Amino acid sequence: MTTETLQVTSVTTKANVYFDGKCVSHDLQLPDGSRKSVGVVLAAELSFGTAAPERMECVGGACEYQLEPQGPWQTCEPGQSFSIAGDSRFNIRVAEAFHYICHYG
Amino acid sequence: MTTETLQVTSVTTKANVYFDGKCVSHDLQLPDGSRKSVGVVLAAELSFGTAAPERMECVGGACEYQLEPQGPWQTCEPGQSFSIAGDSRFNIRVAEAFHYICHYG
Repeated sequence: MTTETLQVTSVTTKANVYFDGKCVSHDLQLPDGSRKSVGVVLAAELSFGTAAPERMECVGGACEYQLEPQGPWQTCEPGQSFSIAGDSRFNIRVAEAFHYICHYG
Repeated sequence: MTTETLQVTSVTTKANVYFDGKCVSHDLQLPDGSRKSVGVVLAAELSFGTAAPERMECVGGACEYQLEPQGPWQTCEPGQSFSIAGDSRFNIRVAEAFHYICHYG
């Protein structure tokens, strides 16, 4: 099931812009005090590093992703998610757009 | 004063992507039931139409804007805003990024 809306308490108004705008996200604070972000990756092939562990939940579009080092390329579609360890990297290929919620920790 | 965070109750997780990603926004619902959006326009010269009246509040970066028909080009910087009538158009020029809150009505 796709998460169409997310209950939050506040949003950071200034966007995070990565890779010349190929990835744009906004940070959110939740009622339990935790933080998440919502964002979109546009048509691109990009490599991201993590600090904390992350879970990327697809809420629209799709991507292919690869966990480093050299995991298999897998597809992530609406309602699906994938988890990345902290202090590691993942690669992502997007044909049109990949809309996501990033869950931390 | 720049609005760095906005108190909201929910966010629509899927982004609005306009002009091949030159403008990306997320819709928000506020505690009073009203709707706003937060977004960013990247380096571009774009023309937008309005349905309801809008007020664009700059929360980062800057833009030049022109209200149609043929208003003067004016600058909008953090803490400033400009208002657009309903059912009309405005043009915007951005050199790097223009981060905004869009207030409706």
